[in-house]
Amino acid sequence: MHSVNHEVKEILPKQLTARKRDFSRWYDQVLSLADIIDKRYEVKGMFVWKSYGIKLMKSIKTLWDKLFEENDIHEMYFPLIVPLEYAMRNREWFSGFKDSVFWVLLPGRDEAKHILRPTGEPAIYPMFKLWIKSRSDLPIRVYQTVSSFRYETRQTRPLIRDREITFWYEIHTAHASRQEAENELKKHMEINDEIWRNLAISPIKVEKPRWEVFPGAIGAIEYYVVMPDGRLLENGSCNNLGQAYSKKYEITFRDKDGRIKYVWQICTGNGARYLAAVVSLHGDDRGLIIPPSIAPIQVIIIPIYFKDKISMILKEARKLLNRLKKSGVRVELDDRLEIRTGEKFFIWEIKGVPIRIEIGPIEIENNFYTVFRRDTFRKEQVSARDISSYIKKLLKEIQVNLLNRVKRFYSEVIVECSGLEDLKTVIKTGRVAKVY
Amino acid sequence: MHSVNHEVKEILPKQLTARKRDFSRWYDQVLSLADIIDKRYEVKGMFVWKSYGIKLMKSIKTLWDKLFEENDIHEMYFPLIVPLEYAMRNREWFSGFKDSVFWVLLPGRDEAKHILRPTGEPAIYPMFKLWIKSRSDLPIRVYQTVSSFRYETRQTRPLIRDREITFWYEIHTAHASRQEAENELKKHMEINDEIWRNLAISPIKVEKPRWEVFPGAIGAIEYYVVMPDGRLLENGSCNNLGQAYSKKYEITFRDKDGRIKYVWQICTGNGARYLAAVVSLHGDDRGLIIPPSIAPIQVIIIPIYFKDKISMILKEARKLLNRLKKSGVRVELDDRLEIRTGEKFFIWEIKGVPIRIEIGPIEIENNFYTVFRRDTFRKEQVSARDISSYIKKLLKEIQVNLLNRVKRFYSEVIVECSGLEDLKTVIKTGRVAKVY
Repeated sequence: MHSVNHEVKEILPKQLTARKRDFSRWYDQVLSLADIIDKRYEVKGMFVWKSYGIKLMKSIKTLWDKLFEENDIHEMYFPLIVPLEYAMRNREWFSGFKDSVFWVLLPGRDEAKHILRPTGEPAIYPMFKLWIKSRSDLPIRVYQTVSSFRYETRQTRPLIRDREITFWYEIHTAHASRQEAENELKKHMEINDEIWRNLAISPIKVEKPRWEVFPGAIGAIEYYVVMPDGRLLENGSCNNLGQAYSKKYEITFRDKDGRIKYVWQICTGNGARYLAAVVSLHGDDRGLIIPPSIAPIQVIIIPIYFKDKISMILKEARKLLNRLKKSGVRVELDDRLEIRTGEKFFIWEIKGVPIRIEIGPIEIENNFYTVFRRDTFRKEQVSARDISSYIKKLLKEIQVNLLNRVKRFYSEVIVECSGLEDLKTVIKTGRVAKVY
Repeated sequence: MHSVNHEVKEILPKQLTARKRDFSRWYDQVLSLADIIDKRYEVKGMFVWKSYGIKLMKSIKTLWDKLFEENDIHEMYFPLIVPLEYAMRNREWFSGFKDSVFWVLLPGRDEAKHILRPTGEPAIYPMFKLWIKSRSDLPIRVYQTVSSFRYETRQTRPLIRDREITFWYEIHTAHASRQEAENELKKHMEINDEIWRNLAISPIKVEKPRWEVFPGAIGAIEYYVVMPDGRLLENGSCNNLGQAYSKKYEITFRDKDGRIKYVWQICTGNGARYLAAVVSLHGDDRGLIIPPSIAPIQVIIIPIYFKDKISMILKEARKLLNRLKKSGVRVELDDRLEIRTGEKFFIWEIKGVPIRIEIGPIEIENNFYTVFRRDTFRKEQVSARDISSYIKKLLKEIQVNLLNRVKRFYSEVIVECSGLEDLKTVIKTGRVAKVY
């Protein structure tokens, strides 16, 4: 039923590195073992997404698609290739990117006059100029989920620092007034909160200092998570662009008073780094732990085969599968005969499926199921009668427990500092200093 | 509730060109009016997908995602940028593409050693080589949905001939024997049939002559639809690659007999041309007609506002909305006050929503709904009690009617020819000749 992950087969006898001993090595191993990424594609910083990785990422993407639609943010798609002329309309913007853009050469041409999008602005804002004419055209809210391209000179790393930044969403909005744009920013922060809640992670929000925002912009909120090695990982941002871009791209509207005015803009974006945070913060020495809200498989059923009883066990396992499916649980049955039970446990633990249900002759005879929680390793016998409601309750519990664990970790690793000496000590011991 | 399409507002007073009089002009107009594509992006052959276009395309993509998953074909993602070295492993393949590839220049380099994928093979098959070792690694079935890039020299046209070919899926499989690959090909043809059934179109399948298949391949089935102007549009293909690529990319496995053998391969692909066929074949002089199976909105409810009764009418319209939603219909309510009823009719007809329900004081008083069929323009009064079951039956009827209309058109336009003179006459009159 499930095609086996080839990496898993090869590395199976070896142990996963302990996450706290060597986080960086653990991270690479787990991405490969869990069938998320293959790093062997021979362009530096560009990686192959394998099938479980796609499933995880699509699950997060489905969440943002739903949230954006509910908030009247419309999905569109803008071409990958950007004319240099569009990019040069904002020279300040372009000078920030020009050493890291990939150039595109059309067949038979000597000179490159196009770039791959490093981010959406230069493709999107010339269209905004065409679409916006009067006040009734506002607000405009659009987003796209695409790959962006930046020639990173720092060490590349899948989902964190890629030269092809995959599954990147970016929202761009335009408004008639500064106040409207500010309200919009709050809305986007609420949407972000909702995404993070589903990931069972509380991010750290930092208001960017003035000298760090885009030239001419009003402000920005930057999101971070603390990684297990104590480093901060930037993870999305909400930017109040003010009129910085609308002035460069001449995005104007005729207001009710008859005057032509520049629009006020917000942009926000994030993508595969959400998954990087989930992998890094919830994982443990046995692999991933996926929060139930976004788990593509919430429950895996493993039949414990005994020689003469295979068909009977399978029949009961399928019954359970259908029962849980009907009650709305995302559940699968690993009914393969050619793979040992222990290996199945190993595979699904690495993939971080939150709950495993074992069903064998003992369970069937005594009318219960053995339920294993991936986050606490606790096994319990649950009466067959109550299984659906028990599983639904347990999924909620696991979601809460994962968030609490992250909060506990933050409370250990983030230290409020009052003086410079204090700060030095905190940083030296691999923790995060919070300064006001 | 629905953001208005800006093109619609501008072109509103004008008439859509009659589809049969000038199909090409009609096609461009309808893509713009229905909020599918904006052609004004300034890179030739690259277009902006607008929100209703994305909704339509995602609906078709959701269908193929589901079918592929059910058939154990796993979604992956391979990088956009392909090293020239990968492409050159199959020189015959590359010589077919080399005048139409976009070259990528890394920052600070003089010479381009990378290309944008013109199709997936050169990115995917080097990974197959790594993943496949023994017989137990087979079969492998993967697909990706991506943009591909070809510098078309013929006239470009959205969804039909783009330089950025968007929403392109390609399936690639590998098998242990020629027979297994042949069985796989049949499976893919069945999957294709199922997609076309949902689009309410019967495509024409042609076995490609030997001199037209990829060099070294065994054969190919090509799909076509007849466009309203009598031209054939290629629309997907299923290719039996034999060992042509596995020999170039050294994709081998150790068989049970201990010998190293090349794998046998199938590939198939299609994408936005499905939508081009839906637009072209089902559309009429009032715009699109979307088959209910794939319609993102199957039913639009339009309240007929009367001054003193607006809140009462709205209340009843919302009741109907919830009732239809509960019964599983994809339904929306256009409750906007600032847009006239006639304009709403116009907008949703252009977008091809299969059923419109009108609800005003007369309907409410007499306990019925006015139901309008987009395909036949017939209006009926349906008793409020029966509305859910009536709508569900009608959606099925419309799906069947659309398919029958396409079949009728084919029977008029496709003529079996026995001799050369016959053939000349048929082609001269703008019809399609079928020759054995």
